[in-house]
Formats: sequence, C-alpha cells, structure tokens
Amino acid sequence: MTLREKAREFVERDRVKNIILAIIIFNAITLGMSTSDTITAQIGPALKVIDKVVLGIFVAELALKFFAYGRSFFNSAWNIFDLVVVGLGLLPDKGGLSALRGLRVIRAMRLLSVVPQMRAVVQALLDALPGMGAVIIMLSIVYYVFAVMATLMYGPSFDDWFGTLGRSLYSLFQIMTLESWSMGIVRPVMDVYPYAWAFFVPFIIITAFSVLNLFIGLLVNTMQAAVEADEHAEFENLRGLVKSETDIVDARVIELLEEVRALRSEITALREADK
Amino acid sequence: MTLREKAREFVERDRVKNIILAIIIFNAITLGMSTSDTITAQIGPALKVIDKVVLGIFVAELALKFFAYGRSFFNSAWNIFDLVVVGLGLLPDKGGLSALRGLRVIRAMRLLSVVPQMRAVVQALLDALPGMGAVIIMLSIVYYVFAVMATLMYGPSFDDWFGTLGRSLYSLFQIMTLESWSMGIVRPVMDVYPYAWAFFVPFIIITAFSVLNLFIGLLVNTMQAAVEADEHAEFENLRGLVKSETDIVDARVIELLEEVRALRSEITALREADK
Amino acid sequence: MTLREKAREFVERDRVKNIILAIIIFNAITLGMSTSDTITAQIGPALKVIDKVVLGIFVAELALKFFAYGRSFFNSAWNIFDLVVVGLGLLPDKGGLSALRGLRVIRAMRLLSVVPQMRAVVQALLDALPGMGAVIIMLSIVYYVFAVMATLMYGPSFDDWFGTLGRSLYSLFQIMTLESWSMGIVRPVMDVYPYAWAFFVPFIIITAFSVLNLFIGLLVNTMQAAVEADEHAEFENLRGLVKSETDIVDARVIELLEEVRALRSEITALREADK
Amino acid sequence: MTLREKAREFVERDRVKNIILAIIIFNAITLGMSTSDTITAQIGPALKVIDKVVLGIFVAELALKFFAYGRSFFNSAWNIFDLVVVGLGLLPDKGGLSALRGLRVIRAMRLLSVVPQMRAVVQALLDALPGMGAVIIMLSIVYYVFAVMATLMYGPSFDDWFGTLGRSLYSLFQIMTLESWSMGIVRPVMDVYPYAWAFFVPFIIITAFSVLNLFIGLLVNTMQAAVEADEHAEFENLRGLVKSETDIVDARVIELLEEVRALRSEITALREADK
Repeated sequence: MTLREKAREFVERDRVKNIILAIIIFNAITLGMSTSDTITAQIGPALKVIDKVVLGIFVAELALKFFAYGRSFFNSAWNIFDLVVVGLGLLPDKGGLSALRGLRVIRAMRLLSVVPQMRAVVQALLDALPGMGAVIIMLSIVYYVFAVMATLMYGPSFDDWFGTLGRSLYSLFQIMTLESWSMGIVRPVMDVYPYAWAFFVPFIIITAFSVLNLFIGLLVNTMQAAVEADEHAEFENLRGLVKSETDIVDARVIELLEEVRALRSEITALREADK
Repeated sequence: MTLREKAREFVERDRVKNIILAIIIFNAITLGMSTSDTITAQIGPALKVIDKVVLGIFVAELALKFFAYGRSFFNSAWNIFDLVVVGLGLLPDKGGLSALRGLRVIRAMRLLSVVPQMRAVVQALLDALPGMGAVIIMLSIVYYVFAVMATLMYGPSFDDWFGTLGRSLYSLFQIMTLESWSMGIVRPVMDVYPYAWAFFVPFIIITAFSVLNLFIGLLVNTMQAAVEADEHAEFENLRGLVKSETDIVDARVIELLEEVRALRSEITALREADK
Repeated sequence: MTLREKAREFVERDRVKNIILAIIIFNAITLGMSTSDTITAQIGPALKVIDKVVLGIFVAELALKFFAYGRSFFNSAWNIFDLVVVGLGLLPDKGGLSALRGLRVIRAMRLLSVVPQMRAVVQALLDALPGMGAVIIMLSIVYYVFAVMATLMYGPSFDDWFGTLGRSLYSLFQIMTLESWSMGIVRPVMDVYPYAWAFFVPFIIITAFSVLNLFIGLLVNTMQAAVEADEHAEFENLRGLVKSETDIVDARVIELLEEVRALRSEITALREADK
Repeated sequence: MTLREKAREFVERDRVKNIILAIIIFNAITLGMSTSDTITAQIGPALKVIDKVVLGIFVAELALKFFAYGRSFFNSAWNIFDLVVVGLGLLPDKGGLSALRGLRVIRAMRLLSVVPQMRAVVQALLDALPGMGAVIIMLSIVYYVFAVMATLMYGPSFDDWFGTLGRSLYSLFQIMTLESWSMGIVRPVMDVYPYAWAFFVPFIIITAFSVLNLFIGLLVNTMQAAVEADEHAEFENLRGLVKSETDIVDARVIELLEEVRALRSEITALREADK
C-alpha cells in the first residue's frame, strides 16, 4: 500500500470523519461564544487559540485529502466548498475588517458538506435550479430592463433609491419582496411623478406572477418525479396481475391441448387398429 | 370492579367528557371576559372564584385520571399537555407578574386536547414535521451561521439589532419574514457598511428558497399519500376487472375442455366397440 | 296560465335577465362616477335620480320574483344575497352616515349573483370552505387564546394595541399578516417586556404553519377531485382495452368450441355408421 | 426568386438572427452604461451615437420584415411587440421627459421576443391567464366595489389615500399586497372611523382567499396537463402489456385449433377409410 493509499484509507475512515464532524460542531459553538462580550472577557484568548487550532486541523485535513486524491480532489464540489470556507479563515484578520472576522464563521457551514443527509438536502435544492433556468433568465431580463428604466426616470429625483443601476436593482428587489414598496417608495415617488404607479404596479404584478410560475413549475416537476416512481411500481403490479391471470387461462389451455393430443393419439391408434 | 377500574370507567364516560368540555368552553369565555375592565369592575370577584373552581375541577379530573391509569397516564402526550397547561394555573400569581396571569389562559387550549377532531388536526400538523426534518436542520445551520456572522460584523455598530447572538437571531427572523427588512434594517446598515446587501440579499434568497422547498416537500408528501390510497383502490378495481374478464375466457375454455373430454370418452367407446 | 306562472315565465326570460344585468353594470358605472367631485358637480342630481330609479327597478324585480316563487324564493342563497344588498340601499341616507352611502354600493356585487359563470366561481370558493373547517376552528382557538393572553400580559402597557380583547384580535391579525409585526409592534413591546419574542415568534410560526396546512389541504382536495375524474376515464379506457383483448381470445375459443363440436358430431356419425 | 422572397430568406437566416440578438444584448449593455454618470461623462456622446445606430438597425430590420411578410407581419404578436418597443425609441426625446428616455430602454426586452426559449416561457405565462379568467373578473368586481365604497366612506377624511376612485384602487392594491396595511392605513383610518376594520379585514381575507384559489386553479391545471401526458404513456404501456399477454394465450389457442383441425381431418380420413 503506497503512502497515498494509506492517506486515502485514513481520511475515509468513519472515525476520522466523526472526529472532524465533532470539531466542526465544537468550532461552531466556540464561534458563537465569541460573539458574547462577557464570555470573550473571560476566556477570549482561549477561544482565539481554539480557533487557530481548529483552523490548523482543517488545513491539515484538506491537505491530506488533496495528497490522497490528487487532482480528482477538485472533482467534488464539496471539496472546493470546504477549501473556500476554510481558506477564508486564513485571510489576514486586520483590526478594522470585521467583515473578514465574520466571513471566518462560514466555516461552520462545513456541517452541510460533512453530514451526508445535509449534502442530500443541499443537492436536492440545487437540483431544482436547472428546471427553473428559463424563468430565472426571463425574470433577470425584465428585472434589468426595469432597473435601467427606473435609474433613467427616477434617478435624478431619488438618488438614494434609483441613483445608480446598483441602487435601482436593490430597490426593485425590495419592491419585489413587497417590503414598504408603497408607503416607503412608490408614494413618495408619486408625489414627484404622479404616474409612477404605472411603472411599479405592473413590475410587481409581472414579477409576482413569474415567481409564482417558477414555484408552480418546481412543484409540478417534483410531483411528477414522485408520481412517475409510483406509476412504475403500479405498472409492475399490473404486469404481475395480468400475467398471473392469463397464466391461469394459459395453463387451462395447455391442459386442453394435452387432452386433444391424447385424443389424437387415441384416434391414431384407432386408425392403426382399423388397418 | 376495583376502585381504579371504577375511576377509569368514570373518566371515560361520554357524559363526563362532555361536562369537562363544557367547563373548558365556559372557562375560555370567563377568561376572555376577565380582559374587560368594565366586566371586571362589575363581576371581577365572581370571575376569580369561577377561575379557582374551574382550576380545582381540572386538578381533580387530572388527579382522577392519574389514579385511574397510573404510570400509563404519561404515555399519552395529550395528558402531559393537559398537566402542563393546568399546572401553569397553579403557579403563584404575584401582583407584578402579568406574564403568569397570561400563561394561565393557555388552559383554554385544552379544547384542542379534549375534542377528538381537534386532536386529529393537531396530530396531522405534527405528523408533517418529521418529513421536514432535514430541511429544518439545514435551515437552522444556515440561520445560526448567518446570525454569528451578523453579530460579529454589524454588532459593534448596531447594538439594538445585532448586539448579541440572540438579537441577531431575532432580527434575522424578522428579515426572513420580510418585515421592514430593507427600509427598517438593511438600508440603515448599508449607510455604515455599503456592502451589507451582499450579506442580507443572499440570506433572504437562501431562506426563502429553503422555506419554499420545505413547503413543496410537505405538499408532495401529502399529495402522494392521497394519490397512493387512490391508486390502491384503482388497482383493486383493475384486479376485479381483469379477473372477471379472464374468468369469462376461462369458463369458456373449461366448457371446451369438457366437450373434448366427452369427445374422448366417445372415441374410447368407439374403440371398445371396435375391438 | 295563472298570474304567478306568467310572472315566473317573465323573470326567467333571457331578455329580462339581460336587461337587469345591463342595469346592474350601468349602475356600477354611475356609482363609480358619483365618487368624482367634478362629475358630481355637473350631473350630481341626475346621478341621484338614476340611483333611485335603479333601486326602484331592483325592488320591483325582487318583489316580482317573490310573487312568482313564493316561499321557495328564500331557498336560493343568491336571492337572499340580492335581497340584502338591494335592501341596504333602502336604509335612510342621513347626511353624516357616509358608511351607509358606501354600503349602497355593495349593490354592484349583484354582478356576481346574476352572471352564471360568476356564481360558479363564488360557489367554488365557498365549496372549498367546509374542507378547511377543522383547521379554521383550531386556528380560531389558538388565535382566541393568544388574544386573551396578549390582553392580560401586554394590555396594561400597550393600550392601543392590546388594551381590549378586540384590539388584541386586530393586532394579532396584523401580526399574522406579518405587517410591521416586528418594527411596529414586537420591538416596542420588547422594550418593556424583554421576553415578548417568546410569545410572538411562536404565534407567527404556529399560525403560518397552520395557514400553510390549510392551503395544502385545500390543494390536495382540489387536485384529488381532478385526478379522480381522470382516473375514472382511464379506468373506462382500460375496461375497454381488456374487454376487446379478451374478446379476441374468447372469439377464438368459441371458434375452437364449434370446431370440436363439429368434430364430435362427425364422430357420432362415425359411431352411427359403425353400428 | 422575387425580391420579397429574397428578403424573407434573408431575415430568416440564422446568422442574421444571431447578429440582431448580439445587437440587442450590446444595446442592453450600452443602455445600462448610460445610467452611470461617470461613464456618460467620458463616452456619453459615443453612447448616444451607438443608440441611434442601433435604433436605425432595428427600424431597418422591422421594415425589411414588413416588406418580406406584408400584412401577415401583423399576425405574430411578437412582431407587434417588437414594433411597439422599437417605436417608443422614435418618439421625440424632449429634455424634461425622462419618462420617454426610460421607455426607450424597453427595447432591451426584445431579448424575450428574439430568443425562442424566452418566447416559450412568456407564452407559457400567457397561456396560464385564460384559465384564471373567471376568478380575475370576480376579483375585479369585488375590487371595484370596495374601491367605490372606500372612496365614498373614507375619501372625505383621507383624501391622499381614498380621495378619488383611482387613489382608492391604488391604496386597496397596496392593502392587498399587505404592505403597511395596518400601521400605515387602517389604524389611522380607525382613529376617525372606529369600525373601519370591518371593511378592510374582510377585504384582505376575500382577496387573499381569491388569489389563493387563483393559484390553486393554476397549479391543478398545470399538474393535470402533466399527469394526463403521463397517463397517456402509461395507457400505451398497458395496452402493450395486455396485448402481449393475451397474444400468448391466443397463440396457444391457435395451436390448439390447428391440433383439433388436424384431428378432424384424421377422423375424416378414418371415415373415408371406413366407408
């Protein structure tokens, strides 16, 4: 057994996997604890040490996996996911960049990539996406066109909401979720442009109707897959039923056939005797 | 009949059950009346007495049930539910603790545990939960990770919303329900951290998409159960149909077989005569 | 033909029905016009006269129907609906009571009771209700208990929202629709009662989950009814298929039977000759 | 080949279609760029020129198509859509009318009319509408009646929200989307008209329930179409199965028939010999 095979055997051991899982859960808890000022005041340095040790273990684990699988390591999207979320913890943690401190926490999402049942759920969610592709592209086009229009039409007067394409995209996303769309955005806009409702109300109806169709498409697909599996089983049942019933008739006909053959041989005997 | 059997027979009598139900409804109404200042001003003391009497009856009923069933009393989750909601009324009602006064009212939920149809509805709701387990766990992990991140990243500047892990969990729940997520929370946060949308918009999309899948999973399960029952009936129908049709053919073949046998015996007779 | 039969024949004439329909639509338009100050300034008195004439026609129509059908007039819920919405227009229109002026407009809803397709849609909506009964009752109990609790617990400090049972019911309905539930209601309440989230978050989850189940139940029922009709047609197809296929075999067996019988009669002839 | 046939052959060439598609995408990007002040400051005039060139190409394309197809050009709704969205760009772009500048952008929606997959998605969305017709009409009637009532009842005191029929329609649409319905609209109205909840809460429940039924109807239709296609395939499977099984029996019976015929000819031979 080469060293590489030994490494592979090691990382695939159930016990090793469970230890990694335990470390991930433990790390998720310590990361949660590090949000509390009182806890940080007491055992803050210990939490920092734990975090570095855990990060070291994760790096070692991924390095070992990479050594064990070589290039095929990158064939699994889960490995790449692990690499990215662990890698975020290696970025320099400069004082001011609380964003980076926060990103480090994503590491706890490894729970999703390590537990097989969680992988299955995420996989199922992602599998649903391609079937939604065409509607999502359509929605994106409509969304983009409305954002450009909003920027050109309302940007000059409402810089905060529609000043740039990015702000318009964000504001239209907010409107799509129906959050404060009227009291917060459209009524103030209508004070300046009285016909703004003719822009926003169709936008809401179109996007709501598209999202609804997205949802219906997703639902029908899922349902159909479930029903098809059912129908396959039912068809097998029917095949069995029809077969057993026709087999009864068939057996009876075979019995009859033997009877007739016996009869024929008797008649042949009769003819022989006749001669 | 032992005393225990008598007690069991007594608590299972329809009449006793109906009286308890009537008392629950009556208590639900008096509890409702106790919220009105004008009514309390007039018959407040009476309402308090009624409440204590009802509580006494409930305690007596549960004590009798416990005596009647012994340890197996705790086998039914409904009994434990009754015990807890009645027990809440026994807690000392200190002046200031309006929370405890409120909790007493949960007792009226016994309507759900006493009426069999209501039990069935609650049971059906609870039965739906296990099928949602994996997605709920996934959602919880995502939710927890985002809450820790939000606390670390936005806690320092927005203490009210993200100051502690608990506050972040609450605020993210609010955002998940889409209530004032943009105008109330994310826009103010974006004034300090301009890229906050890159945290909150994905959070909204991921949780919305997960909840949608939860819902679709639930729906497909319910539908499939309904369809399977249908298909079983249909299969029985088909079995009957195929059986009756092949029986007709079978009967005809049997008729034929008898004809051939008669023929054979005739030929045998012919051969005998021939000899 | 008695006078009553003549009246019945008259109100059931398509032409009469269409004229009534035209008057309803015309009245709906004039009622809409009466909301405009500029139109009222110009032809306000004319609109009032039209309204009175239309009301007169409706009263005459209903009186004729009542004369034509007698007591069985009340067998149709639609007639009672018509009676109520027309009757609302007969209430004295005192200056201040703008509510009564508004209620008069409900009359335009007769469009729903006069057009058969609309009747069918409303009927379908109402037919969906009984299947939702048990969940609605459960939801009502939960809703009532939470409202009583909210009144007792939060009423003293938040009179506007939870001061009386009615206000609590309204506020909880608002919270159920997720409108400003957190920023508008729960966060202010949490400033006084820090654990208020433990009351409102479960309320939101329970009601959302119940409404979702209500919806799923409704959907599965509708779907099942549609699928059952499909399956009946499919079963008929299958019956035809199985029948025609077994008929082919049956026909062949009958042919065979005749062959055997012919054979037998030949053998009988042979025996006769033999003798 | 006439000039018209040449034109038709030209506009239907894949290469021409792809070039048009590329121009639409390119134009969508330049329209997006024109929303940025920094980009406009640098290459603003270039963007304007590009826009005019693209508009020229689109006009030429549509003119060519019109020449190629003649009157039948108007048979396709997509051509009319193209004509309208391109035509909007030809309207005079007066300084102040930012609305017209915005409408020009709709041209980018041609992506939906040029890519066949997008056409299919839009077609599917539109195909869903007729099945929803009756409920939409019912909803419109209810909506109109409530708007007239709101204008008459609350218009005098709340001019901004219910002052005219148009404002009431807009406010009720907002209430239907549940946006700030209570905190923003109904609570203030209830300060003046304490029973306003008896108007708005039923409105919310009726419209929510109707929209839900709309959605369920849509879903059941889509599902049924999918299931019917499935069932057709299943029926064909069953037909094959039943046929093959009965064919086995049939073949056996035919074998038997031949046996019996052989027997008969033998007996005939016996009779001949007997004579």
